[in-house]
Amino acid sequence: MTGSTDSSLPRGAPIGPAIVLVQPQMGENIGMAARAMMNFGLSDLRIVAPRDGWPNEKALAAAVGADALIARATVHATVAEAVADRQFVWATTARARGQGKRVALPSDAMDDAARSDLRVAVLFGAERTGLSNDDVALADAILTFPVDDALPSLNLAQAVMLVAYEWRRRAIGEAAPFSSPFGTEPADRAPVLSLFDFIPENKRPIMVRNLRNILHRIGMTEQDVRTLRGVVTALAEGRRKRAKNAAPK
Amino acid sequence: MTGSTDSSLPRGAPIGPAIVLVQPQMGENIGMAARAMMNFGLSDLRIVAPRDGWPNEKALAAAVGADALIARATVHATVAEAVADRQFVWATTARARGQGKRVALPSDAMDDAARSDLRVAVLFGAERTGLSNDDVALADAILTFPVDDALPSLNLAQAVMLVAYEWRRRAIGEAAPFSSPFGTEPADRAPVLSLFDFIPENKRPIMVRNLRNILHRIGMTEQDVRTLRGVVTALAEGRRKRAKNAAPK
Repeated sequence: MTGSTDSSLPRGAPIGPAIVLVQPQMGENIGMAARAMMNFGLSDLRIVAPRDGWPNEKALAAAVGADALIARATVHATVAEAVADRQFVWATTARARGQGKRVALPSDAMDDAARSDLRVAVLFGAERTGLSNDDVALADAILTFPVDDALPSLNLAQAVMLVAYEWRRRAIGEAAPFSSPFGTEPADRAPVLSLFDFIPENKRPIMVRNLRNILHRIGMTEQDVRTLRGVVTALAEGRRKRAKNAAPK
Repeated sequence: MTGSTDSSLPRGAPIGPAIVLVQPQMGENIGMAARAMMNFGLSDLRIVAPRDGWPNEKALAAAVGADALIARATVHATVAEAVADRQFVWATTARARGQGKRVALPSDAMDDAARSDLRVAVLFGAERTGLSNDDVALADAILTFPVDDALPSLNLAQAVMLVAYEWRRRAIGEAAPFSSPFGTEPADRAPVLSLFDFIPENKRPIMVRNLRNILHRIGMTEQDVRTLRGVVTALAEGRRKRAKNAAPK
């Protein structure tokens, strides 16, 4: 059994939950669950009594890029063994079980996990049947997904991904991972203001005011000004040519 | 082209974003994207120039339960046509494109979509290549996922699901879809207090106080009391039997 931390998480970030797949049936789903975990920085995969044994070729094939996570997954005979070193256990279920347990969405559950700093496990049942009531009885609380009644059944790997995603949001904060800055510097005002010098004087006051209101809202860069100047020149050239062609008639 | 609302969303809820798959390659991914949309109450699927044509048998096979959504998906020759009736367009990308656009995570993007009440589209690129810079140029802003550098590539259907999931959270609010109430009524205090009458008088004061502190923290139901009384009785019986068996020696 492993309680390994994820070396790719920022130093000092809380340790992510262990993902426990209980009697999973399809190797493909195990592999895709591993991928989803790795997409969002989780690394502790535990598998209880997989139907097709272990290791599983199909799991490895589906885990493209997450082979390492499959390789160090631990396999357990019982859920109790799989969560032996955990302090708080969530059971994912799609319906109430009458066990008098707290029910939370993934966002709340991962809020708790990140705040509490406990060693957490999240249990996922087999593809068709979900967790048994005995499995749920081993958990502290129930985690459920805000699915639509029209199609409430989630793919196993996708359920795992939503938990991993919500964990990740807590681990890295709410900032986007990159910005998409302007390729060139913001333009000086003079070239922006001169863009429309070509417009006839008698039409200018209102039209220019309206155009400037648009252009300043855009926050143009130097490249933007060059692009627009090219467009304006092309338009003006076209007008001159048309005027020239029209003249002889 | 359809701008259909989702009949399964609460009346009065804002209309969900259109999901636009641009040149998707694998029918399976289209089908799984449809499933993911339906899991979270989205219904407006638009497909631009699918590699294997349309309709697509593999898409239908993978869309288990979401066949209706596949059946009314619209197919378009260009991205511009697919978003013609949209007021705000998000482009999903995994990296900055130097286009001077706002970059947001799915949560922020869907916050905006729910608040603004605009007709929104979210563009998803082909599996391997993502969106072209020309596609991104058609968008108002960039949507990106908080993936880990160790495995940043998301499966197409899973990317769609994260957007649908974040939309759903806004559409239905943050309450869990069900509670898991106690099967029986909360217990009266008397049966709880009498549970440990069997403990010898001389050991009782501290032990009983500690036990009561535990039991009141649990908030026991009538069924809980019956269960515990059964356990206590079994233990007491066992002690009496052991005492009886030991006596003749």
